[in-house]
Amino acid sequence: MKAPDVNTSPYHRFLGLTLNRFEEGLAEVGLPFRPEFLRADGSDWIHGGILSALIDIAGDYAVWSKFGVGVPTIDLRIDYLRPARAGNLSAVGRVVKAGRTVSIADIELRDEVLELVAVGRGLYASPKV
Amino acid sequence: MKAPDVNTSPYHRFLGLTLNRFEEGLAEVGLPFRPEFLRADGSDWIHGGILSALIDIAGDYAVWSKFGVGVPTIDLRIDYLRPARAGNLSAVGRVVKAGRTVSIADIELRDEVLELVAVGRGLYASPKV
Amino acid sequence: MKAPDVNTSPYHRFLGLTLNRFEEGLAEVGLPFRPEFLRADGSDWIHGGILSALIDIAGDYAVWSKFGVGVPTIDLRIDYLRPARAGNLSAVGRVVKAGRTVSIADIELRDEVLELVAVGRGLYASPKV
Amino acid sequence: MKAPDVNTSPYHRFLGLTLNRFEEGLAEVGLPFRPEFLRADGSDWIHGGILSALIDIAGDYAVWSKFGVGVPTIDLRIDYLRPARAGNLSAVGRVVKAGRTVSIADIELRDEVLELVAVGRGLYASPKV
Repeated sequence: MKAPDVNTSPYHRFLGLTLNRFEEGLAEVGLPFRPEFLRADGSDWIHGGILSALIDIAGDYAVWSKFGVGVPTIDLRIDYLRPARAGNLSAVGRVVKAGRTVSIADIELRDEVLELVAVGRGLYASPKV
Repeated sequence: MKAPDVNTSPYHRFLGLTLNRFEEGLAEVGLPFRPEFLRADGSDWIHGGILSALIDIAGDYAVWSKFGVGVPTIDLRIDYLRPARAGNLSAVGRVVKAGRTVSIADIELRDEVLELVAVGRGLYASPKV
Repeated sequence: MKAPDVNTSPYHRFLGLTLNRFEEGLAEVGLPFRPEFLRADGSDWIHGGILSALIDIAGDYAVWSKFGVGVPTIDLRIDYLRPARAGNLSAVGRVVKAGRTVSIADIELRDEVLELVAVGRGLYASPKV
Repeated sequence: MKAPDVNTSPYHRFLGLTLNRFEEGLAEVGLPFRPEFLRADGSDWIHGGILSALIDIAGDYAVWSKFGVGVPTIDLRIDYLRPARAGNLSAVGRVVKAGRTVSIADIELRDEVLELVAVGRGLYASPKV
């Protein structure tokens, strides 16, 4: 399956997202650190809104790897395990189910020292065949 | 309760977030449209990662209105109801429970024509007393 | 819309479930108390597994009221707000979205004194047309 | 860690639950089939309310294995992957995080032929120290 081009999305360009792995049932996205991602002046914690976006995108690309097209997110659960400190982030999405109507992906988000900082589970609309 | 200053967060400045209402148990945040928020070139749909961030933030400020301080998000569920088209967004968070250990907020996100585009439910760590 | 017969389900009979209201977009189920529902000997708290079942069922019947048939649950989030003490329970499901592919319901569960003890949000597969 | 006695819960006795494994960070509960668990007369699918209860309980026992006491569920997400057909069920809960305030467990539920039928993610209140 040909990897999608992350740079066709204005929001992905805005964030500076990279697609680091793209295999059947798995996708890994990376996010090089920018100070604009911090949650508060004087803090070195990254904002939760950055983490949830990365998790959603990694799950979406994982499902894409099964069907060859982008899929709308139906719902998403995110659990924040610990603060993500300033640094590069990476999120790995894995497909749990690729169904006829809906698909599910599990996502793990790690910080620069590979500590697990958040996990997600997303439901995506499978493409109509 | 004094309203928090949204501009003390680098990520909020990056997005251009505004805090439009701040009452006990309720907060409304607004997001003026920027083309960088779109999900794909040639599309007029806003990226889901913008929606989830707004939802998280509105819930967080709603809980803030109960305790007077910002609170970490523990987990978050987002349901996307329909595409959010290019335009200004607003999210209203309402506290469902302000507990000793954890607090819950429900959040509704509307697009510029006030259509409900996504709903969220977030769990936040109540401040230690 | 004709109300469904709760007694056609072995598990509903096992619990002793009743369907108290059934209107377009809304369903209320009731559960008369039985000591078998308690979580621990010597406790007067009802087991969470009873609460989650009631929440799922109320949401399912709410969506049924839109389509005229039972629908499979795709996913479900439950937030427990406070212990449900021994006594009759009732759960009200309301449809948030009745879509072509999926439908969403919000559910509120109250104990005998009408205290809100848990809330749920469920996603259901809309019937194929 | 001494395994908890599942038979001290009226609801666990009502279901006929067994605790099959109990190790640090992991618990497996089993549920021998009874026809009362079916979702509809003439169907051989097990009711979703049985599955959600088993998932909640397996996650709870997994967290118990870390702290030595039962813990209240704060919230729970369940994803139903496919129908669970009549037969014995088993659910394995694994602790993802055992925190000072809250703990998270992931749960997998399998049917008699070991097919994965549902997954869950639960948040539990860690015991006060």
